[in-house]
Amino acid sequence: MEKLTILGIGSALPASGRNPTAQVLEHNGKFFLIDCGEGTQSRLRENHLSFDKITHILISHLHGDHYLGLPGLISTMQLLGRTRELHIYGPEDLWEILKVQFKASKTWITFPIHFNSIFKETTLFETESLICSSIELNHRIACFGFKFQEKEKPKRINGIRVKEVNVPHYFMNRLREGEDYVNELGEVFKNKELTIPPRKSNCYAFCSDNRIKDGFSEKLKGVNVLYHESTFLQQDLDRAKKTYHTTAFEAAELAKKCGVEFLILGHYSARYNDLAPVLDEAKNVFENSILGKEKMVFDFTLT
Amino acid sequence: MEKLTILGIGSALPASGRNPTAQVLEHNGKFFLIDCGEGTQSRLRENHLSFDKITHILISHLHGDHYLGLPGLISTMQLLGRTRELHIYGPEDLWEILKVQFKASKTWITFPIHFNSIFKETTLFETESLICSSIELNHRIACFGFKFQEKEKPKRINGIRVKEVNVPHYFMNRLREGEDYVNELGEVFKNKELTIPPRKSNCYAFCSDNRIKDGFSEKLKGVNVLYHESTFLQQDLDRAKKTYHTTAFEAAELAKKCGVEFLILGHYSARYNDLAPVLDEAKNVFENSILGKEKMVFDFTLT
Repeated sequence: MEKLTILGIGSALPASGRNPTAQVLEHNGKFFLIDCGEGTQSRLRENHLSFDKITHILISHLHGDHYLGLPGLISTMQLLGRTRELHIYGPEDLWEILKVQFKASKTWITFPIHFNSIFKETTLFETESLICSSIELNHRIACFGFKFQEKEKPKRINGIRVKEVNVPHYFMNRLREGEDYVNELGEVFKNKELTIPPRKSNCYAFCSDNRIKDGFSEKLKGVNVLYHESTFLQQDLDRAKKTYHTTAFEAAELAKKCGVEFLILGHYSARYNDLAPVLDEAKNVFENSILGKEKMVFDFTLT
Repeated sequence: MEKLTILGIGSALPASGRNPTAQVLEHNGKFFLIDCGEGTQSRLRENHLSFDKITHILISHLHGDHYLGLPGLISTMQLLGRTRELHIYGPEDLWEILKVQFKASKTWITFPIHFNSIFKETTLFETESLICSSIELNHRIACFGFKFQEKEKPKRINGIRVKEVNVPHYFMNRLREGEDYVNELGEVFKNKELTIPPRKSNCYAFCSDNRIKDGFSEKLKGVNVLYHESTFLQQDLDRAKKTYHTTAFEAAELAKKCGVEFLILGHYSARYNDLAPVLDEAKNVFENSILGKEKMVFDFTLT
């Protein structure tokens, strides 16, 4: 997992300078687009992110600020001559919504789209090095978050030692897989001595719109970087409860409980012009809180 | 008709700094939103245009760059507590598209929406001082432009003469309607002497996506300010023909033929970074060509 680019951090009502939810997670040259609020295609352009490299699009729920940019983005992919297949994950009605619009505009999508309906907590897809699963959230309509768990990474070669021992090139992958090396003279070199431990596997969780239920932290086991909405300040807790949202204080309490390394905040209510109090509220509880912002890039190699 | 604010001037593919088609025409305190590409609600905010004052929304056709901002805008109107009725004019499928989305997001619209399907050239609506009608355009899918014709304005009072003649206040409206004034001594004052001619009635036509057919200029009779797409330069005429669009040269030829006062250009292809050649091409044919731009305000009181 290399980096996460925040494209939008606003909530339902447009606020000056904020865009609705959308993020891009990069992993081994693949781009996963997470939520796709109105204007996401323009935000992708502004952030110099290739439309074509997006292989998976995940939509948490069907409130407009999380998906209304999708029909336009897909139409643009078509206009740009895309041939690469696209995997979309989202609520079942999303496919119906897209089909109605493509039919009306006589847009014939000629690249393969695989639509996968999300209706429970499950593994959504798996690549060689990553597993993506859905997390059930508690919102006014069906809503799912996403967990991206990197698989255990291979051991790394201890360059100095393998040179000293004269390990042949063909044996490197076997070393990465944990094998000991025996040379022509029958000398045994323990794997541990010739390798260094793998890089850390990151686990990123995205929780778009969520009123945190008791026991929710259980779902986030193993997560080290958490994006969790923090629509309101604690002073507006009543409003948060009523609208099935979370306060910055509550998001930070969750982060602390889960023992994550970093909490990224977002989905701020348009009522707050100044976001400094949102960050302060979270930091008072959980020091490694980060105020998510448009164009912010979170670098996973720093974790 | 007071002013026209351009919110977006791009075409189907997003180009940096350009937004898809949307315009707001102000007339007697009413705002008519013409087309509503993705991101229009943010553009309205940026231009300090009130969502609540929008009484009519007109959608030319169902290509995404002309209507994908509508579901989000209507949801926002609902969130802002709108009670004022809203009149929407557009292709019949638009209503279906909106309904599917509101159902999926469990958005209950509680203000009255009157949806009117456009399928032929006709008067769409009439206010005390304006008639709005549809103009059939020639595009890949059904597409209509819009003509906003101000009705004849009342005569204006000649302030100096009515004072000299001592015309009583109650008689002013009768003067505006053309009546002569007879004073208590039986002296007759001709209406012409006590009034000045009405202000000019403007007629604005909006032609979104159109491959100009022979005889099209007939439809624009009486128009003095014309917005016409100019997606391409004449060097890309083949592309214009193929995609049912117009070149800047052709739009200017049309403006000249129709004898309009001003031509506003727009809907530029993303292939042109520099728009100066578009304006040059049009100005060579029709001097009063204006390069439509984001945030541009056309002031009708200057015509």
